[in-house]
This record gives sequence, C-alpha cells and structure tokens, in this order.
Amino acid sequence: MKNTFGNNLTVTLFGESHGDFIGAVLDGVSPGIKIDRENIDKRLSQRRPSGKISTARVERDEYIIASGEYQGYTTGTPLTVLIPNTNKKSGDYEKLAKTPRPSHADYTAECKYHGFQDRRGGGHFSGRITAALVAVGAILESALADKGILIGTHISELHGVADRGFEVYGDDIATLNSSAFPVLREVTYENMMREIEKAAAMGDSVGGILESAVIGLPAGVGEPWFDTLEGMLAHALFSVPAVKGVEFGLGFAFADVYGSEGNDAFRIDGGKIVTETNNSGGINGGISNGMPIIFRTAIKPTPSIFKSQKTVNLEDMSDTTIEISGRHDPAIIHRARTVIDAVTAITLADAFTTRFGTDYLASKD
Amino acid sequence: MKNTFGNNLTVTLFGESHGDFIGAVLDGVSPGIKIDRENIDKRLSQRRPSGKISTARVERDEYIIASGEYQGYTTGTPLTVLIPNTNKKSGDYEKLAKTPRPSHADYTAECKYHGFQDRRGGGHFSGRITAALVAVGAILESALADKGILIGTHISELHGVADRGFEVYGDDIATLNSSAFPVLREVTYENMMREIEKAAAMGDSVGGILESAVIGLPAGVGEPWFDTLEGMLAHALFSVPAVKGVEFGLGFAFADVYGSEGNDAFRIDGGKIVTETNNSGGINGGISNGMPIIFRTAIKPTPSIFKSQKTVNLEDMSDTTIEISGRHDPAIIHRARTVIDAVTAITLADAFTTRFGTDYLASKD
Amino acid sequence: MKNTFGNNLTVTLFGESHGDFIGAVLDGVSPGIKIDRENIDKRLSQRRPSGKISTARVERDEYIIASGEYQGYTTGTPLTVLIPNTNKKSGDYEKLAKTPRPSHADYTAECKYHGFQDRRGGGHFSGRITAALVAVGAILESALADKGILIGTHISELHGVADRGFEVYGDDIATLNSSAFPVLREVTYENMMREIEKAAAMGDSVGGILESAVIGLPAGVGEPWFDTLEGMLAHALFSVPAVKGVEFGLGFAFADVYGSEGNDAFRIDGGKIVTETNNSGGINGGISNGMPIIFRTAIKPTPSIFKSQKTVNLEDMSDTTIEISGRHDPAIIHRARTVIDAVTAITLADAFTTRFGTDYLASKD
Amino acid sequence: MKNTFGNNLTVTLFGESHGDFIGAVLDGVSPGIKIDRENIDKRLSQRRPSGKISTARVERDEYIIASGEYQGYTTGTPLTVLIPNTNKKSGDYEKLAKTPRPSHADYTAECKYHGFQDRRGGGHFSGRITAALVAVGAILESALADKGILIGTHISELHGVADRGFEVYGDDIATLNSSAFPVLREVTYENMMREIEKAAAMGDSVGGILESAVIGLPAGVGEPWFDTLEGMLAHALFSVPAVKGVEFGLGFAFADVYGSEGNDAFRIDGGKIVTETNNSGGINGGISNGMPIIFRTAIKPTPSIFKSQKTVNLEDMSDTTIEISGRHDPAIIHRARTVIDAVTAITLADAFTTRFGTDYLASKD
Repeated sequence: MKNTFGNNLTVTLFGESHGDFIGAVLDGVSPGIKIDRENIDKRLSQRRPSGKISTARVERDEYIIASGEYQGYTTGTPLTVLIPNTNKKSGDYEKLAKTPRPSHADYTAECKYHGFQDRRGGGHFSGRITAALVAVGAILESALADKGILIGTHISELHGVADRGFEVYGDDIATLNSSAFPVLREVTYENMMREIEKAAAMGDSVGGILESAVIGLPAGVGEPWFDTLEGMLAHALFSVPAVKGVEFGLGFAFADVYGSEGNDAFRIDGGKIVTETNNSGGINGGISNGMPIIFRTAIKPTPSIFKSQKTVNLEDMSDTTIEISGRHDPAIIHRARTVIDAVTAITLADAFTTRFGTDYLASKD
Repeated sequence: MKNTFGNNLTVTLFGESHGDFIGAVLDGVSPGIKIDRENIDKRLSQRRPSGKISTARVERDEYIIASGEYQGYTTGTPLTVLIPNTNKKSGDYEKLAKTPRPSHADYTAECKYHGFQDRRGGGHFSGRITAALVAVGAILESALADKGILIGTHISELHGVADRGFEVYGDDIATLNSSAFPVLREVTYENMMREIEKAAAMGDSVGGILESAVIGLPAGVGEPWFDTLEGMLAHALFSVPAVKGVEFGLGFAFADVYGSEGNDAFRIDGGKIVTETNNSGGINGGISNGMPIIFRTAIKPTPSIFKSQKTVNLEDMSDTTIEISGRHDPAIIHRARTVIDAVTAITLADAFTTRFGTDYLASKD
Repeated sequence: MKNTFGNNLTVTLFGESHGDFIGAVLDGVSPGIKIDRENIDKRLSQRRPSGKISTARVERDEYIIASGEYQGYTTGTPLTVLIPNTNKKSGDYEKLAKTPRPSHADYTAECKYHGFQDRRGGGHFSGRITAALVAVGAILESALADKGILIGTHISELHGVADRGFEVYGDDIATLNSSAFPVLREVTYENMMREIEKAAAMGDSVGGILESAVIGLPAGVGEPWFDTLEGMLAHALFSVPAVKGVEFGLGFAFADVYGSEGNDAFRIDGGKIVTETNNSGGINGGISNGMPIIFRTAIKPTPSIFKSQKTVNLEDMSDTTIEISGRHDPAIIHRARTVIDAVTAITLADAFTTRFGTDYLASKD
Repeated sequence: MKNTFGNNLTVTLFGESHGDFIGAVLDGVSPGIKIDRENIDKRLSQRRPSGKISTARVERDEYIIASGEYQGYTTGTPLTVLIPNTNKKSGDYEKLAKTPRPSHADYTAECKYHGFQDRRGGGHFSGRITAALVAVGAILESALADKGILIGTHISELHGVADRGFEVYGDDIATLNSSAFPVLREVTYENMMREIEKAAAMGDSVGGILESAVIGLPAGVGEPWFDTLEGMLAHALFSVPAVKGVEFGLGFAFADVYGSEGNDAFRIDGGKIVTETNNSGGINGGISNGMPIIFRTAIKPTPSIFKSQKTVNLEDMSDTTIEISGRHDPAIIHRARTVIDAVTAITLADAFTTRFGTDYLASKD
C-alpha cells in the first residue's frame, strides 16, 4: 500500500518539500471525534524547528482541515489535513542530482524514480512531510486520551547522555507532552544540550534513543501473527525519518538475561491482573496485556552536516566531495519524538477501530 | 489484514498446535518458480527441535504442497503448504485456562478470544505454526537466490557470548545456511553451547541476538513512507515469536556517534557505486542502496522454564504459582533464525514483485 | 489482493481441481460463532452436482475444518476449510494445452501463466473451487441468521422462462434455502426443467438470472465510495464462475423510468422508517437503508457443451475444431446460486465486522 | 479500505461539496508519466454541468496538482489533485437534517454518521467529489493511451431511446472521447435530447445505460478469483453515483441464449488469436483475452426532482412531503460517463501495475 498505512483506519501521506501542499488523509475515523485544535497546534509547534538547536528555516505550519470536519467534529468521512509550503527557497538542487549526499535518500531515489523525483528540499523524503502526520496523529491522540489512553515519549539517550527510565507512568506523560525537549530529569536536559551545542560547534550532528509509553490500553488489542502490536507499531515507526531501531520492553537486553529473570510474573493488584515487572513492554503474543506499552526507537544523527564528505559524481562516475550548505539541525531527536507519538496514536487508533468497530473513538460529550 | 502479510505477494498463515493441519498460502507468486524441495527440507530440519538443546518432542514436519504446484514448478496460482500435526499429546490444558503462564500469550489470548481459543499446546500462538512460514519462505529464498539475492543469519550474541560480525558477506552466507547452529567463529559455538547447557541444568532458558544479511539486492527497492524496507521487514520480523527488537545497520549504536561518523560515504568501486561503511544497513530513505541489508533481531529467552513462577488464578482472582511440566527448549534462537530467514525472503519477494511485476521471480531454466 | 477478499474479515481461496486439496481461510472471524455443520452440509449438497440435470461426476465434498474451530465454536483465529480432491480422473489435458475451449479460461490462463498452470480439470479455474467458498460462507450465513439477517436466492429466469419476483420476503427465504432448485412458483420449476432437458438433449446448455434478497440488515452498513455495499458485493459476485452481470433494485430497468417513478418515498410504518417501493434495492449512497437488499446476477450458459466448436491450435496457430468429451452440466444456475449466497454472506459479515468490530458475530448462546 | 481503491496502484478520495477542497491521491503511479493537462481539462469539462440540460451551478473546476508532479511528469511519489470548492451556496440544510430526500443518501448517512455528517450540498456523497476522480483518471487514461489502450463510452440507452452498439471499435473511441454527449448515431442525440427536455419540462429526470469499450488491452491481465477484471471494474463502477447495474459482454442477455450461441469461437486472424464473437466482453476466467473489454452500466435517473415527494420527519417520526428547491439536472448520464471512463482507467492502470511492475506506465518520450 506504499503511502497508506493501517487496516480499519488508514492514513495516506503525500507531498514534497517544495510542492504546493503536503498533506495526509485519515480514513475510517469515527464520526463525532472532537477536533482538538489546541493539541494539533501544540504538537505541530513541537515538531517545528525553533531556537538555536534547530534549523533556521521558519516554518509556520498553518494547516487546513480540508475535509472530514464539520462544526468542530469529525464527520466520519475522510479527514484531510493540508499544510501549504510557504517558505520555499530554490537552492542549487541540480548539484544534488549529480552528487548524492551520504546517508540521504538522494541516491536511492535516483535508483527508484530514474531522475523524475522532485529533488528540491529532499522532495517526498523531506522530514517536513511528517508535519501532516503530526497533525492527524494529534487528532487521534486526543480521541484516545478521551478513552483514557495516553501516549508519551522522552529522550532516553543522546550521544551518550542518558535520562532515567519511566517510573511513575501517569504523571510523566502529561509533563512530557507539554515539553519541547522531553526528559524525565532536569539535569539530563542540560547535559544533552551541551552535547548538541558541541556537535553544532563542530558542524556535526548527534542522534539518540527515544523511549515511549502508552498507558491505559486495555488488554486484548492486537493480533497473533503479522499484525501484532509490535509489528504494526514498528512498521509505522520505521517510517519516521532517522529511525533505525525499535525494541519493546527489555528489547535487546533480553540477550543477557535468563528466562526466569525476563518473564513477567502475574499478580492480583486491587482486583486487577498486573505483572510484577514489565519486561514484555505490555505485549504478549502480539496482543496488549493491560500493562503500559513501552518501546524505544533508535534515532540516527541527522545526515545533513557542514563537514565536507566523500561522495560520487553520478554523471561521470568519479569520486568527489560534497559540502552541504544551508540550514542543518545538529539534533532532531526532540522533534522526531513528536512524529513518533503521532504514528503511535494512528497505529493504536487503527487497532482499536479494527477491534471495536468504526464508532468506537467518538467523543462522549 | 491480521494473518495475511504483503502487498503484491502475500502470505496467509493458519493453524493451531493440536489442530489437523497448520499451513500457509502464498498468493501472487510468479508462475514458473522451480520448487526447491531440498531447501524446504533443509530449512524445516533447521527449525525442528533436535538434540539435547531442544525439546524432546519429535516433529517430523512432513508437508504437502496442496495447491499451486504442477510438475515441480509454481503455477502462479495460490501455493499452499499444509503440515499435518501428527504428534499431539493431550496435556492438562484446563489448568492453563485458569493459570496463565508468565510472558506467554495465555492471558492475552483469553482477553481477546474470551475463552474460545484452542489452548492445547499454545494453539494458534504455538511456535510450531512457524513451520509453515519456513516452508513457503524456503521456496521464495531459492527463487531469490536464482536472481543472485542471498539471505543468511548468524547468532551474534547469546546470553552475553558474542560472535564476530559479518565481514566477507558472500562466503559466510552459504556456510551459515547449511549450519544448524550458525555462528561465524568456531569458538563461539562452544561458548554459546556451554551457556545453553548451564541454563538447561538450572531449568532455565536463554535468549540472544540474531544478525542477518541480504546480499545482492539491487538498489531502488522499497518505499519512502510506511512500506519502507525497514518497516516491511520489521512488520514481518515481529511476527516471529520471541522477537522483541529489530535494528538496521548501526541501529541503537547510532545514539553514540556523530553524524560525520555515522554517514556512509559514497565511492566508485569497479565502476559501481558503493559506500565505504554500511552503517545504514543498506537502506536509505526506506529504499535499498545496493549494499548488503544488515539487521539484528533481539530474541527473548523462551518463557517456558521448569522453575516455579508466580501467576494468578483467573477463576477466583487469587495469586498462585505455576510449574510448567513437559518439554522445554533452553534456547530457541538457532531455530528462530530459520523463521527470520523465511519472513525475510517473503518480504523481499513481495517488494520485488511489487516493483517488477508478477512474472519477475520465475526461474530462468 | 488477488485470491483474498474483504477488509476486516477476509477469505483466501486456494486449490486446483486435481490437486490434493482445495480450501479457504477465513480470517478476522469473531470468536464464539457456533459452527453450523448442518448448514455446511446442506449448502455443499446444493452446490454438488446430482441427478440428471448435472454432471455425472460424484463429488462427496467431505471437508475438514483444519484450523480455527475448537469444541464446535470458532476460536477467532483463522478458520480453514480443506476439501480433499478424491475423484480425480486423468483426462487428456495435453489436448487442452493446444486447443483452448471457447469461453473457458484455457487461453487466458495460458497468456497469464505461460504454460505453468495446472490444466487438469480446469485447475484453479474449476468451479469445484467454489465448494470451499460455500463451506465458509455457510458458517457466516448461520452467524448472520443468528443476528436476524437472512440471505436467499431464487432462479428468476432460465432461458426465457421467468419466475415471479420476491414478494413476502421472510417466508420465501426459509423455503428457498432448503430447495435444491429454488423458485418461487411451482410451475416455474417444471417449465425450467423442460428447458434444461431440451438443452441437454441437444448437447447444449442454458443460463439465466438469479435474484437474491438479504432481509434484516440494519441501516447504516457500507461506505460512500469504493467500498459501497454494491461495490463490495459485485466484486465478490463476479468471482462466481459464469456471472456476467450484477444489478441492484430496478437495475437496468432504471433506464426506462422517470426519477419520480424510480425514487423510493419514505414513510413511517409501525414507528419505523420504511420506503414504499424498493427500487434502490435497499442501498442509498452505498449504505444499507434498512429495506431488503435485492440484487440480480446474470449467469451465462456453462461453456462446456457436447457440440463441436471452432477453436485454434496454439502450437501451429491454425484454425481447428474441438469436441469436449466427458461430463457436462446443461445448467449450473441452481448450483451457482449456492455460491452466490456464500459470497453474499462473506461480504456482509465483513461489512458488519468492519462496522461493529471483531466480536460482533459471536453467537449469543 | 473504504475510500481507497486498488492494489499496486491506489486512489484515495476525499472531500465534501462545501468543504475547502475535494481531492484524490494516486499512489503507486509510475515515475515519468507525462501529465496530460489537456486531457484533464477536457475530461473535467465533460463532467461539468453546462447548457440547458444540466444544473445552473457554474463549477469552474480549477485544480491543483499539489504533489507528485515535477516539470510536467509524475515523480512516482503520491500524486494529489486538489479542487477548491469556490461556489458554495449555503442552502437550507437544516431542513434536510429532518426530512431526508427520497433515494438520496440523506437517511443512510444519518444512520451511519449519527448526525455528524456534513449535509451541505450532499457533503461527501455529492456527485461533485467525482471531479477529483476524473482528474486523476484522465492522467492515467493518457498513460494507457500511450501504450495503445483506449477507453471510451457512449450512451446506449436513455429513457427508452437506444443508440446502436459498438461496431468499429477504434474509430468510435476517438470521436466519443471528444464529445460532450457521446452517441454513435446522430439521430440518437436528437431523440435523447427530446426525452431530456420532456423530463425537464415536467420537473422530472431520466436515466439510461452507458456502454464502454476498452481497446488494445493485452491478453493475460486480471486474476481468476476476487480480483477478476470484472470484479475490480464493477467494484470501482458501483462507486460512481447513480450506477445500479454492471454487465459484461452479453450480460443479462445470456439468460436467453444457448451455450452454443453464447460461446466465443476462436480463430486465427492475421497471425493473431481472436474470437469470432465477443459475448464474453473480452474477459474469460476473470482475465483479459485480447478482445475489446465491453461493459454496460445502468444509470438511475437523478433523484433530485422538482416534483413534490413523500418523505418522513425524522424528529417527530411523522409522514410529510418534500419539495427540493435549487438546481436539478434532468439527466446526468452524459456526465456520469466521464466518471466511468475515469474509474476504468484507474482500475486498468492498477491491474497493469500489479502485473508488470511500478515502472510500466512511464511515457516513452
């Protein structure tokens, strides 16, 4: 399905960095979801570059809900968000055509689209496209929150600097979601910022690890094979540019423990079934077990750096170098986090709609 | 799509551990692929438990190609593999109904299927179901090999014991694919075996990390969003029981490097474009770049152990303990590897068929 | 999706006439549906050739529910029906390879599968494959009936002989569903039988029109675009071999009426909204309006006839003739009707599951 | 998939009559297709109401290709057409909320969307939405024409007035496609126009039958089950508002012929295999046989008429009447024809892309 994702609720993504609009279509959304424009604005602003750690390009992210909304609620018909591209600078994109940037999609796009791709600003591969995902994700995020399901993410590691892990789930989520640079300990912020500034000073960039939690998801959502919660979430998460790894619960650390250490014992807590540990990250056999869903995503350093890099000239097939001018983010991990929350909301809303039908996510008011 | 995966070429999986048959249907397969029964047998035997490190249950894995084959070649119509369940012991499955095994799917299945699930031997969640995936994957694996595309996996870590990484891609693959316990250094085998035996002696189990390589994939396969090569592979890989993490190239290690270190410089090598490093794991912007695809999957220790574990009694909602009798594998990572190769073959064959049409994978002879 | 159909509930079909098994996989089915084996048997026997008006080949239609059933109920995991091919005669299929039968799929299969197709008995194109559809359809038909939704079909026309139309919906359905040759007037049966015998005597065949009704479907099921009830039903119906036309309500007769005649006026009847006429066939804007769904399907005469026919020799590209020996049905319309009821049940069960979630069709007992 | 249709090439439709934009996203389109804006304009103008036989609302159908085009060619990434809704009159839509129009979607929309639907101008059910389909269909139509595949439609019947059938396929198509009211005989035009004027004078409306031909489609395209050419085309065609029937080749007339009359004999013609008749409409076993694809669609009279009609008041559940003011088309069949050509182009382009891969439809220049 290429640019469409989901089963009963789908999202279709389109646009290029320098086209007229980027956008996303949500289909299969419940009628009667209150459109939470405040959350859309908050999430778009978190994704938007701002301040010294980000690119200088000012993107206003005005958006239009072009269909599927009436009098403040979803109609149940396809909901389309359009975001106009207003600040398009015509760079020297002919150069990119000849000398692909290392670890960018310039070369693979050439192989796939045979030169017909729109190279301006990264075209369809631009991180800017994620703004549309963030907008529709924000709508579903609010709808899920209405059902008691909260999604939140913090930067758990950045170039060697680690944050503490999730502890008290509920409290953290609210705070994280209103922060532009979400961490769980104040000192982490300062240490990470120092790393980012150091990288910026060198004309370089840093990556890191994001840790996400989903609270309040009832048990019994997901499928045993293929459309496991892990599989669907990972499918969506790997669409977020720069994501190169996804793990649930203990994840790769399972390699070092015994089964007796890794297993999550059940116990009764206040009449409810819970597990003593949550090494499974809230998922067994592909299906939610009622504990928080916990996953981590690896974010590579943004490949756009000021340093000179080796590349090739596609025209004469010779070795050469490239210096990428323009605006570069030394870190995009805090912005990527917003996209991760968005695709998580989309994936869960789809799993819910598949499980409980197309009216399930309607607001109660 | 639940138990169906893929776009232009799909696989549908069905069956329970103690039903009459488990099976898989491949649809959209090219006509004229030579059915490589030797490879099916080899791969099934690698997946099958055998020897002291595995469960005592002898599974013969006879299989029937019930449709889609004629005179040794695929017909182009749905190809169905059926595997009869011949060795079904009727255990005390009523007990499981009341006391779910920690980190198994017993509890989540109950939440999803309301008691109607077949609990015998894990039912639809049984690892045995993967035998059908392995069989159809083996057919596609041979078809891809015919096109010069090789898939192979080694155990890169097992309870703290590490193998060396891939170095010389081509040579390793052939050797790995004929080994029942694939590692790249002989000493690794002994050290890992010692860990497994230690765990077995304690009635416990161990997990690890598998590293896979895909060699010979042309550049230009995959999609920019959602159906990225990473997203499609991860979607399939997380179906493999026990997989809790997937990373490509440097993966989570990207958190510790600068962009200048993580970027893969291009250069010309023998008239071909290659990258000096392969930190991207062969994928940029979701699309293959012509370098080997490299990914790692985290395998949790099998949750079936002999040790007594805490659980709950679902009937009276009280705390209790469980001791799981029967056959347990102290390690299943070497068997999981075969399933990983199978779903990789399926995912790549799908990506190819989508890109090049439904006749693409036909044999040349 | 080729051999898979449906959104939230899917059916996957496989098999060839002379393979080991034909079969179908239902995925996304609610857990807890009582398997109505009596209905499966009844429906399979209606589809099966018998008596003088049908082919002499005796097909016993034994079937195995190979997965997805436990203790008489659906488990919620994929339900697979397998039907062994027991009565395989090895005809002269090499001849078919050279001289395609007119209006059969021999030639188009050759163009699509390049000679790799299994030609024995029509292979994957054999009407026999529909037995698997009938079996899984019968399970869903009973589940829908439990919810008050009834599906029934009569032969409304056969080679110029017309039956009366539906009048009293509820009563007719029960009677129709227990008849091997369903008509609404007794005299129709005799007249149609006479036509069939006449055709048989000439070594020829006849077609006709089937009219189907769905009673009890609540209003609000279906989608405005693409997955309209009409579109989904038609998609499935055109899979039934020999179907060459589908119309809803007045259908093609709309060409002769004014809007004021064709529109269905609303009125209140016993506190419920009904329409005075049902020219729309129970569907407006792709969505059910609570009135019976009424549609008709055109069934072409079976192309297998004893008369000599002109065809070509594919080897030397010359004109030639063919006489098709073996068993031929002079009419298959009464058997096709069972397949139409089956795909209707599948399509509606899918629309329901999409609308109301995956637990919706579970039995109440 | 609700508002998304297709397998390897998909179209997603969105918008409401009085929203900001309606639009469609084509995904999976080959890179390098020349965007034929002339054809888009021609096709949009044919769909647009004009002259005395159509509604007085002037729709300019300006459109924006918001993504997926660069320098006049498709990029291969999702192509989005947006059409602004510029001429929105705020009618008395509250009234519609209470008294649903007969044979419109007002009542079924209420049942499905619980009052959240946008009722203005028919909302998502408005025929206006088809403008977006027409635009993207026109792009694919030109791409198919580049490969020698032509699509054309004439009005074969209008309220009892019949046109002649297709005879010389190639010549007709070109002429039909440049006509705003496509018929094959001049006298048909006058007779049909007279019927339309008569209906208009009475405040009533008329329907009819459209006959379409696809010329130049190679043999071997389509699938045996479910995604048969007939099934895929019918699925798309029933999305076109007012379509209530679809038949291929002889269609419903098969009910009156013997197999020996209905079968299409093969013969060699100029070294090519053709059939003497084309009663199958170019499709056997769901797959194209190289002859023209011929199908007919039944178009119901537009339900918007000036005459007073019986309906109900949804608020107090009482009987009442409605007079629909505003603009009404006495006939929309000539406009519906453009939408039918569009969805035919989309469906065939999808079947081709599935068969031959994603690069297949690229222009040769």
